Amino acid sequence: MATNSLVEIKTLSPKFQDLYTKAKDFVENDCIPAEKTFELQMGKGESRWKVIPPVLEELKVKARSLGLWNLFLGKTYAEGSGLTNVEYGLIAELTGRSPKLAPEAMNCSAPDTGNMEVLAKYGTAAQKAKWLTPLLDGKIRSAFAMTEPRVASSDATNIELNIRREGNEYVLNGLKWWISGAGDPRCALYLVMGKSDADNDNKYRQQSIVLVPADTPGVTVVRPLPVLGYDDAPEGHCEIVFKDVRVPVENIILGEGRGFEVIQGRLGPGRIHHCMRSIGIAERALEYMIVRVTDPSRRTFGKGLYEHGTIVSDIARSRIEIDQARFLVLNAAKKIDDVNAKGALKEISMAKVAAPHMALTVLDRAIQAHGAGGLSDDFPLARFYSAVRTLTIADGPSEVHISQLGRNELRHADEIRAKFEHQKERSQARLSKL
Amino acid sequence: MATNSLVEIKTLSPKFQDLYTKAKDFVENDCIPAEKTFELQMGKGESRWKVIPPVLEELKVKARSLGLWNLFLGKTYAEGSGLTNVEYGLIAELTGRSPKLAPEAMNCSAPDTGNMEVLAKYGTAAQKAKWLTPLLDGKIRSAFAMTEPRVASSDATNIELNIRREGNEYVLNGLKWWISGAGDPRCALYLVMGKSDADNDNKYRQQSIVLVPADTPGVTVVRPLPVLGYDDAPEGHCEIVFKDVRVPVENIILGEGRGFEVIQGRLGPGRIHHCMRSIGIAERALEYMIVRVTDPSRRTFGKGLYEHGTIVSDIARSRIEIDQARFLVLNAAKKIDDVNAKGALKEISMAKVAAPHMALTVLDRAIQAHGAGGLSDDFPLARFYSAVRTLTIADGPSEVHISQLGRNELRHADEIRAKFEHQKERSQARLSKL
Amino acid sequence: MATNSLVEIKTLSPKFQDLYTKAKDFVENDCIPAEKTFELQMGKGESRWKVIPPVLEELKVKARSLGLWNLFLGKTYAEGSGLTNVEYGLIAELTGRSPKLAPEAMNCSAPDTGNMEVLAKYGTAAQKAKWLTPLLDGKIRSAFAMTEPRVASSDATNIELNIRREGNEYVLNGLKWWISGAGDPRCALYLVMGKSDADNDNKYRQQSIVLVPADTPGVTVVRPLPVLGYDDAPEGHCEIVFKDVRVPVENIILGEGRGFEVIQGRLGPGRIHHCMRSIGIAERALEYMIVRVTDPSRRTFGKGLYEHGTIVSDIARSRIEIDQARFLVLNAAKKIDDVNAKGALKEISMAKVAAPHMALTVLDRAIQAHGAGGLSDDFPLARFYSAVRTLTIADGPSEVHISQLGRNELRHADEIRAKFEHQKERSQARLSKL
Amino acid sequence: MATNSLVEIKTLSPKFQDLYTKAKDFVENDCIPAEKTFELQMGKGESRWKVIPPVLEELKVKARSLGLWNLFLGKTYAEGSGLTNVEYGLIAELTGRSPKLAPEAMNCSAPDTGNMEVLAKYGTAAQKAKWLTPLLDGKIRSAFAMTEPRVASSDATNIELNIRREGNEYVLNGLKWWISGAGDPRCALYLVMGKSDADNDNKYRQQSIVLVPADTPGVTVVRPLPVLGYDDAPEGHCEIVFKDVRVPVENIILGEGRGFEVIQGRLGPGRIHHCMRSIGIAERALEYMIVRVTDPSRRTFGKGLYEHGTIVSDIARSRIEIDQARFLVLNAAKKIDDVNAKGALKEISMAKVAAPHMALTVLDRAIQAHGAGGLSDDFPLARFYSAVRTLTIADGPSEVHISQLGRNELRHADEIRAKFEHQKERSQARLSKL
Repeated sequence: MATNSLVEIKTLSPKFQDLYTKAKDFVENDCIPAEKTFELQMGKGESRWKVIPPVLEELKVKARSLGLWNLFLGKTYAEGSGLTNVEYGLIAELTGRSPKLAPEAMNCSAPDTGNMEVLAKYGTAAQKAKWLTPLLDGKIRSAFAMTEPRVASSDATNIELNIRREGNEYVLNGLKWWISGAGDPRCALYLVMGKSDADNDNKYRQQSIVLVPADTPGVTVVRPLPVLGYDDAPEGHCEIVFKDVRVPVENIILGEGRGFEVIQGRLGPGRIHHCMRSIGIAERALEYMIVRVTDPSRRTFGKGLYEHGTIVSDIARSRIEIDQARFLVLNAAKKIDDVNAKGALKEISMAKVAAPHMALTVLDRAIQAHGAGGLSDDFPLARFYSAVRTLTIADGPSEVHISQLGRNELRHADEIRAKFEHQKERSQARLSKL
Repeated sequence: MATNSLVEIKTLSPKFQDLYTKAKDFVENDCIPAEKTFELQMGKGESRWKVIPPVLEELKVKARSLGLWNLFLGKTYAEGSGLTNVEYGLIAELTGRSPKLAPEAMNCSAPDTGNMEVLAKYGTAAQKAKWLTPLLDGKIRSAFAMTEPRVASSDATNIELNIRREGNEYVLNGLKWWISGAGDPRCALYLVMGKSDADNDNKYRQQSIVLVPADTPGVTVVRPLPVLGYDDAPEGHCEIVFKDVRVPVENIILGEGRGFEVIQGRLGPGRIHHCMRSIGIAERALEYMIVRVTDPSRRTFGKGLYEHGTIVSDIARSRIEIDQARFLVLNAAKKIDDVNAKGALKEISMAKVAAPHMALTVLDRAIQAHGAGGLSDDFPLARFYSAVRTLTIADGPSEVHISQLGRNELRHADEIRAKFEHQKERSQARLSKL
Repeated sequence: MATNSLVEIKTLSPKFQDLYTKAKDFVENDCIPAEKTFELQMGKGESRWKVIPPVLEELKVKARSLGLWNLFLGKTYAEGSGLTNVEYGLIAELTGRSPKLAPEAMNCSAPDTGNMEVLAKYGTAAQKAKWLTPLLDGKIRSAFAMTEPRVASSDATNIELNIRREGNEYVLNGLKWWISGAGDPRCALYLVMGKSDADNDNKYRQQSIVLVPADTPGVTVVRPLPVLGYDDAPEGHCEIVFKDVRVPVENIILGEGRGFEVIQGRLGPGRIHHCMRSIGIAERALEYMIVRVTDPSRRTFGKGLYEHGTIVSDIARSRIEIDQARFLVLNAAKKIDDVNAKGALKEISMAKVAAPHMALTVLDRAIQAHGAGGLSDDFPLARFYSAVRTLTIADGPSEVHISQLGRNELRHADEIRAKFEHQKERSQARLSKL
Repeated sequence: MATNSLVEIKTLSPKFQDLYTKAKDFVENDCIPAEKTFELQMGKGESRWKVIPPVLEELKVKARSLGLWNLFLGKTYAEGSGLTNVEYGLIAELTGRSPKLAPEAMNCSAPDTGNMEVLAKYGTAAQKAKWLTPLLDGKIRSAFAMTEPRVASSDATNIELNIRREGNEYVLNGLKWWISGAGDPRCALYLVMGKSDADNDNKYRQQSIVLVPADTPGVTVVRPLPVLGYDDAPEGHCEIVFKDVRVPVENIILGEGRGFEVIQGRLGPGRIHHCMRSIGIAERALEYMIVRVTDPSRRTFGKGLYEHGTIVSDIARSRIEIDQARFLVLNAAKKIDDVNAKGALKEISMAKVAAPHMALTVLDRAIQAHGAGGLSDDFPLARFYSAVRTLTIADGPSEVHISQLGRNELRHADEIRAKFEHQKERSQARLSKL
């Protein structure tokens, strides 16, 4: 049972408590019991990419009627829910327990959330009317097209899709992959990052982001990419060719050369959402593990599974690791609330490194406790593993965050060295008097 | 580059060296370049389970012509290749580099190898003529039906498929799953373990193993089970219902109640084969990692990938871990050669615990170095991860092996305690003279 | 730089903030610069156990004058400082940075703190007057005599020192070891746990705790025990023989058979204090590491140390691990504040497992970054390592806490299973309608 | 019980088997029972550095009479024992079980062994007569003075003690520390590394090594440095000032500017010896652990210690890790035997990284199983921990070896890339025919 006396639900606002209780009930009693139905309604083969299981729309209706809608969009936005990042973080943990259904049912699923934030924050009135409104309404979906196969995209300055202005249009040419959500038939909009000014001396001013309707001629979704064997349909993670794709110049976000500004603004809270959902996933995995190892029909060598080997210890460690990670994530959320996302970069990186790694560890233990079954789809664990495994790569691989964190610490070297020198002087002064 | 001065290829027999060279060339220049073809020839949807890619048969012909055939069956068998387990282990490492093609191309793939060993060792002349001959010929394939979904099969005494004798027939009723190879249209034979004498006081005498032709009425392959999203078609890991399945009593292996004897005899070398292949997989993964992090087109933040973070260290550790695991596996193989599989249980367990875990670690690092691409099928790493992940569960989960190893060590407690007492007495004698 | 937006100093009371600032200044500018002096004043050989370095008394005077005195004794005690456990926890982290001097200078050092809590909570007026007053005054020191060499003391029911009532006296006979503080010439009092009723059916009622003045005839401090080579003089961790030691019956705490009650009450906050100090130690170790690897005179192979291998990554991980552990400890402190120590057993165990292990990891990395020097006493790291290493054993070894945590989780198995069943039913209901 | 079928004692020469049996008997029945006597005879305070416990000389006499003398000096030396490095490695594991007594008793202790190798390999006839003979005779001891406190000595080019030629003398000025063995009253000789040609463009030609008799004027042993609290008396690890120390030019080894040549030649086998002894230490620690957790008097909560938590698993893992490390070390020894030390640099690095780390892990588990006692000197574990902890730093810190290993692997990148390209071409050729 998780422990969290530092951010107790019961100390938060009554309005939030009510939302939290509803969200919990909705996830446990509506979303989780709908998972098998969703799978069945998905169909097989190509229909996986064409049919949206009706149960999802049904859940969306219910969530919206409960007020569980667009909660991710915080109080800094006109359209926002008024929740703090800490509050939304706690909700996001709940939705993580049913990661394929609950976030979308509550219109809080990536990458739409980040895209809606971008539009709400940087969009023109026209852009908002055309795209933000239907997104907030759950009528369409969207994708964010950044990663490219031919360069090391973990350094975003490498991204090279060409954006060329011709008259009142931008012409896009290039190749993207791992474009999450692009497989969804409802995906109507891409936010595409590319180089509009490759020769700019400031490499953080070379890129722009433009809005590209999904049905623009020249856009071809080539294929979905599997993740550890899972295609994540209907959203998918897709490879997309942009060939002489033309959009009006009004489709630019913020202005030419401001792509980095946009992605910096976009990533903060979204990273935390992923982390919180990872914690929800880990909690559900631990529940599966506990149920499995105490299953009376699963005795071996005269003992319950839980009486063997390191299982009790693995469960205890999982509890510690989950709760530690939650604190890191809530800490980052609190820092965003107190300062802003930019001021919380360090805290976000810490959570981003710790939470997915923790969840993978807990999932791996849970899978192992289920034997081969744990690797199949008879349990949700393998699918969860696949989903979380991407999080150590997406939005900046762990290595990049770790490197930034380490260098951040090193930046204090001079200050600490000065303190050490000062202490040494005081120490010498004492010693000289002995 | 792997190091192994303890078992150098060049000190082994010229005949083996020749085979080894041929196998290496065959794997690198025939099997690996055929992998994409195999995938394409597999087709999609249901055809994955019906079509055997022609390239496979082509490779089999070539392997056989090179003498790379049935090498797993060692010198203790009349039909054997004359290789020692150490020698075959070194070959198996090579085949592990192309795990889906090379082992089968050389007629050395699980579970057929274990089944052929069983038939060679325990089969009657009739059983051999009917099943062993076509298996050795690569004409048919086979499966071993042991694991069941409703009991904790890691303790094989729990297995409960019912085998009832009626006149000159055995009647089988029960449910199996994770029956590897059962999805293959060429799979003609199941070796089925079940309870023929559930009331026997000796729980290691309750089980028998009978041969069941795949086309026997009452046998239904229900579904393949995915492993981390991979179905491993065309072989697959399947769930099978046995309903009033009748086979003649001659189909029993060794005799009623001797099921444990058979599985004990079966598991030894096979476990090593899996381990050795894991090492080959890890070596190939490390090659992928090295190529990736030195790719001149993959520079980030002004440096090559290999200049970042812990990558060089990860590569160094991978080298150490791979080579350590290889020694454990070769040590087990040597012990089997020197004594026999039963006498090498400890060594086999050690290798069985260490090798897959090592390979997963190396694979995970290699995947991470490839970014999201590493999780897709554009590289073989994710598929390998799925394949190796099962090995910490199959043939006894790591936990069971670790538990046995630990208790094995504890068995020496009295002997060590006696030595300590003796040393203490000698120490006291000395001290009393001071 | 540590991050902690969840419990920000600036949100706590002005009174506390003032204390915190003073404590920080006192530790950094008085205690740390006095460490070398303390070492030199200790002398060598036997004098290590006889001389209390004068600098310590000087620091005590200063601390007391600053109001930094007895802060550990919280608001639940009449004599208390009024600090919450969270607040004291934050102070204890600061004192952990100079673990040999700061806690004692502020009269907050173990085992006195726990003993004072026992006397304040359970002591009679006479006991308080005689022992609590001088302890609170920093005039004497005390020890808690529980662990025994001949039994596995991690299960306290094993403790077997004999307490026999004879008339108005208790007679104690037995052997204790690891009695921290017993080497100190100022140690005037032992709280001794032993069996007063070995035959009681309830094994948690067999033990009592009695107050034994250190100069009672029959008490012999046999020897100090080193920890990884450190004797921790002048306090030490000592072996003590109790031979026909007689104390008046008034010296019992709470009453016969109530020993477990006392130790349960004693352990809670004290464990957290150790944990918090571990975090302070880890922070100081990380500072040493940062200074070392950026030292311009420490370049190798043409690069600064920080540019090599995994050093930046090690620093980043240390930051994450330290901050995670701090949250666990503050969470436990908060739970004690909100409920009480008994209600926070789980949270305390979590912190107790995580914090020392984390500190050892950080210390080991810092030592390694200092080369051989890090293992010597030219830096405080090796000594810190020794001090923290005991914390995975003292007050319940990590294994016991982990086992309790794991079983605590398992206790929820039925509840989770019921929820799963309920979800399954709802899922089936949906499916049946498809 | 260790397993090692790859290098079985019984397959080695009868002469070696005889030596091995004698060494085992000598270590177990003479050295280990003499450890307490040695400690007692050491005395206290300053006498620790002046008295050589008589039991040591007694053991030396016995070892020599058994033929267990100078076994480290292999068949490539005229004075050698004729043992291969593999053979000596197996003996060194045995001596590691009593690391303070057995190596020296058999005249096989560091740093004398390395120094004797240097003299045997590079020494002039006069140098050999004066120093090698008494060293081989066990009459004197020696030290190797390389590490310096003011520079990062892990890069030996940083070493800066000044060696200046004046007429027929070299004049040495500088500061050394961590000079193992320099505290021993029998230490008669230092091999001192320093810069004789600081301006040489080739930084590997700037250094020389000269022989300095310990009693040369200007040499001052300043202090011994403790390692995790242990002083390792009487040898110690000392700080030494060289002030205008003059030695005749004949005292140079090999010639001016050839210091790197000498240390390269010196380090190979010696590193392996340390590794092998680490394995012996780990084996003895595991024995202690096994005896402890099965001690009938150490039951907690109604069960034997071995029935709790992860203990059986820890023991099993220790067995695997020890045996894996042994193979790496024997592999390096075999490579030295087959090629030479220079050709085995990679293998030596692998063993050097793996073995001490493994031993520390095993020791830490064994200590934990002993409770606080494990940290004291009532068991040899804490002392062993201290001894092994230095090995991750001495003779090149693990980080340097790991970095070299990683870069060594990367050196194969082009070759592997070419193979991949070749395989891709073959793959494309196949695909184009489909």
